[in-house]
Amino acid sequence: MSRLYAPTLKEDPAEAELASHRLLLRAGMIRKQAAGLYTYLPLAWRSLMKIEAIVRDEMDARGAQECLMPIMVDADIWRESGRYDAYGPELMRLSDRHEREFVLGPTHEETVTDLVKHELRSYKQLPLNLYHIQDKFRDEMRPRFGLMRSREFIMKDAYSFNATQESLQESYDGMKEAYASICARCGLKALPVVADSGQIGGDTSVEFMALADAGEASLVYCDDCGFAADDEAAATRVAVTEGPGDGALAKVRTPGLGTIEKVAEFFGFPESGTRKALALVDGEGSPVVAIVPGDHEMNEVKAEHAFGVYHLMSEEELEGAGLHKGFIGPVGLPAGVRLVCDESLRASTSWTCGANEADYHYTGARPGRDFEADAWADLVSVRAGDPCPRCGKPLSGARGIEVSQVFQLGTKYSEAMGATFADESGVERPLLMGCYGVGISRTLAAVVEQHHDERGISWPVSVAPYEVEVVALTVGDDVVGPCAQRLAEELSAANVEALLDERGERAGVKFADADLIGLPYQVILGKRGVTAGTAEVKVRATGERLDVALDEVADWLAERVGSERA
Amino acid sequence: MSRLYAPTLKEDPAEAELASHRLLLRAGMIRKQAAGLYTYLPLAWRSLMKIEAIVRDEMDARGAQECLMPIMVDADIWRESGRYDAYGPELMRLSDRHEREFVLGPTHEETVTDLVKHELRSYKQLPLNLYHIQDKFRDEMRPRFGLMRSREFIMKDAYSFNATQESLQESYDGMKEAYASICARCGLKALPVVADSGQIGGDTSVEFMALADAGEASLVYCDDCGFAADDEAAATRVAVTEGPGDGALAKVRTPGLGTIEKVAEFFGFPESGTRKALALVDGEGSPVVAIVPGDHEMNEVKAEHAFGVYHLMSEEELEGAGLHKGFIGPVGLPAGVRLVCDESLRASTSWTCGANEADYHYTGARPGRDFEADAWADLVSVRAGDPCPRCGKPLSGARGIEVSQVFQLGTKYSEAMGATFADESGVERPLLMGCYGVGISRTLAAVVEQHHDERGISWPVSVAPYEVEVVALTVGDDVVGPCAQRLAEELSAANVEALLDERGERAGVKFADADLIGLPYQVILGKRGVTAGTAEVKVRATGERLDVALDEVADWLAERVGSERA
Repeated sequence: MSRLYAPTLKEDPAEAELASHRLLLRAGMIRKQAAGLYTYLPLAWRSLMKIEAIVRDEMDARGAQECLMPIMVDADIWRESGRYDAYGPELMRLSDRHEREFVLGPTHEETVTDLVKHELRSYKQLPLNLYHIQDKFRDEMRPRFGLMRSREFIMKDAYSFNATQESLQESYDGMKEAYASICARCGLKALPVVADSGQIGGDTSVEFMALADAGEASLVYCDDCGFAADDEAAATRVAVTEGPGDGALAKVRTPGLGTIEKVAEFFGFPESGTRKALALVDGEGSPVVAIVPGDHEMNEVKAEHAFGVYHLMSEEELEGAGLHKGFIGPVGLPAGVRLVCDESLRASTSWTCGANEADYHYTGARPGRDFEADAWADLVSVRAGDPCPRCGKPLSGARGIEVSQVFQLGTKYSEAMGATFADESGVERPLLMGCYGVGISRTLAAVVEQHHDERGISWPVSVAPYEVEVVALTVGDDVVGPCAQRLAEELSAANVEALLDERGERAGVKFADADLIGLPYQVILGKRGVTAGTAEVKVRATGERLDVALDEVADWLAERVGSERA
Repeated sequence: MSRLYAPTLKEDPAEAELASHRLLLRAGMIRKQAAGLYTYLPLAWRSLMKIEAIVRDEMDARGAQECLMPIMVDADIWRESGRYDAYGPELMRLSDRHEREFVLGPTHEETVTDLVKHELRSYKQLPLNLYHIQDKFRDEMRPRFGLMRSREFIMKDAYSFNATQESLQESYDGMKEAYASICARCGLKALPVVADSGQIGGDTSVEFMALADAGEASLVYCDDCGFAADDEAAATRVAVTEGPGDGALAKVRTPGLGTIEKVAEFFGFPESGTRKALALVDGEGSPVVAIVPGDHEMNEVKAEHAFGVYHLMSEEELEGAGLHKGFIGPVGLPAGVRLVCDESLRASTSWTCGANEADYHYTGARPGRDFEADAWADLVSVRAGDPCPRCGKPLSGARGIEVSQVFQLGTKYSEAMGATFADESGVERPLLMGCYGVGISRTLAAVVEQHHDERGISWPVSVAPYEVEVVALTVGDDVVGPCAQRLAEELSAANVEALLDERGERAGVKFADADLIGLPYQVILGKRGVTAGTAEVKVRATGERLDVALDEVADWLAERVGSERA
């Protein structure tokens, strides 16, 4: 450690919100070069190489072949695919000295399609799966969260080429299997979340979400059947509660009760029994009232799907449409205002909702009798507690970090770029493609999010920069120093990666740094212990401390560490 | 091989001049994405990973620490060092969405100096050597020669930080040692060529040149004392021959003999006995006649050093200056024409040279008696056969490919960027720096330049994509096929990297591909041999063929290959 370049920080860096960002900076593992651009210092780089090795192992085991494509990509092939114009400002663009345009690849569908299209000619050469591990670029509007949302990041991206949908499905399933295994071997608890469902049933895109409070994605999952989804993507199956009353339409004075919370309290009823109304202007400029269960939020993605590029009405627009803020409902809407209700409410027959008159609500409003919806649509985000859309059991909620994704591309790129093959009957067909990405640097950050405590990082053995830290409490004497040196050599001989803290620092500093850097095992050597022939082993993750005989500790660690390697 | 993505080509690609370019394309190892941008296909990538592993091993053994710096570099730190303006059009530049400027690093002196300057505070933290392996960018005017001169290439670059010149020298010497070892382990014959000599004696920059006819650099080296230099950089020690005659100045009619060749022939004398005159206009616009030994060329770099930005005179300029093309010499030059002679001629007393009169030459011209030189200067390129400037033995000539370079930077970057440390007396001093680069992808190309024949590549074991090719001459039968499969498994169990050619191709195609791809050993399995319990082993480099018992061939290869690994 006296030679290692790992400048630890005593204080939390001000700019770091996430644990991974804060701890990787503090433990001297990363440094910022510019916004969204990080240097991986030696400790982080060792972990990254281990993650890469795990990824390679899983890819190679499934017949994928590693190559390396250039980072710079001729803009012409991005024009062929249509992405040059479609990609938007997140694409890093540059020109060479001859004013020829290039992009810095955020992914490499065009490059790989262009690569194989002259050489894959027959179904006999298929399937093929090529991958590479490389720095990727995305010009984030606001790079932040350290490695989580940076502008240059390490990705493994793989591309399969297949002759038939059945073969594509096989490649895709193999990659899904590989990705689950990669997460597990890196020590990540992750959920495969269905991002997109195919037309013929089954999924065609799955994101692997590492569970972490700091995750950007909000997820629901079913402990029972294994279903998992992004709350924005999942089809809802909201359990709706009927409102109060005897089923007859009744108008109730509710002075000043313009929020769901107040209305529910007034009626002494859960929020799920009320109906929430949102007044908006749809993509065509027409006024719409959307009604959703009182305890659910309208989901922006789903709403955009239903209404186009909409906006919620301003006070002026509400007034202009003849609507009363806080008291809007489906019954007696002004002429010209379209009524769209959430699918989950279709079977509900007793709604508590605004009366379209200031300070009044209805109870017992019934669709078909008291009002007609112009349309029913899936409008709300799934929440923890909602029934699982697959099995009906209650869903759990979590936040997640997307660490990898598998995707069936079909013929999108091969058709645009003319990449065809001759099938068994000699007919030219566009290649079927799949793409499969693993965020290598993001996986590192996700591991830290899942494996840390208030004192620092707590690496799983499989991706730890080193496996054991030997902490020599005194240095320069003829007892602890030589013993620590010998133990480090014994560990090395036993193929255990050991880092020796032989710095002339106080014990407190060494303990703090050991916990901060977070190698899985610490062997603490003090004068008293060494004289008595004992080493203290501390397990970083659990805090457990054991006394082990000095002459057995290398073997003991070799066995323990060996059993925890991925 | 039926699954491997290595599309071999039967024909030589038209655009490829160099053997490495041609053979890497033909063997299905690289493909061009755009000018100067190549994809490394699986076979080449395996070799590159081996080269990288050798480089890592040599760097780590000398205490260098691997990290990874971002490819994109904030232009501001390049402005601090002054390189943003100085670097010229070979620097790839781009702007982000906020119009902030960046460069794609061709090297990383600024990044690494910026990285450590806040954290290296004391001499106690020194020395430090950080390196990374990464894609680098250089916007070549005319990218060509495949991997030899591409725009995106893989480099290992290391940077040392030292407190004293002595320590810098140690780091530098360590890296020189590492680089020699890297070349040797990759199977490269390379010369360490002094690129720059320090003021206090000893070298401060050395280039490692892999010897190859296709090399861009022209080298001289001494087999005796180990001296090696770029012919442009080396100080000359030309052995000069005296001209004919008795030492008296004699004017001889030489009608139409306006070239060195004709003059030497006319006098029946070697070209080295004549003097070559070059008329030029120097950087200040003044006419100069430069005289060099008749058998040597004036070196452009040295001439620019002596004359500034000069040009050779046009016919009109010759006429204007009163000079006679083909008959220019030091005696009787028109007034106002400066005479500069090569240093090597200073001791020569009998020159055969033009007489400054059409169709006439002098013999026996003597400096100091017949003319006065205005200056003596080192003007010519060293050639094979010239005496070694160190030991005097005749030099050999060769062409070379620069594969790596070590360089003492001193305080150039640390001063410009304010990177200081406190020395033992507490005085703040700028860090001393060295930089050390290995062209990883260029090393691959250089290996192919040195290891190929007319049939293809012939990899050294240490960097071969696989170590052994098992060629099954028949497939689908129950004799050769299963035997080949079993052998491949035995080799794999013996940790030998084997590639199995089990394709349904003719034997001729398989032999040609095996020689083209060039794995070091081929095991050829035919029906007759297998039935008789014999395998034929072919050594690719020598063409040697051996019969080895089938049940011993895996062990035999494991031992042979093992002994040749780096």
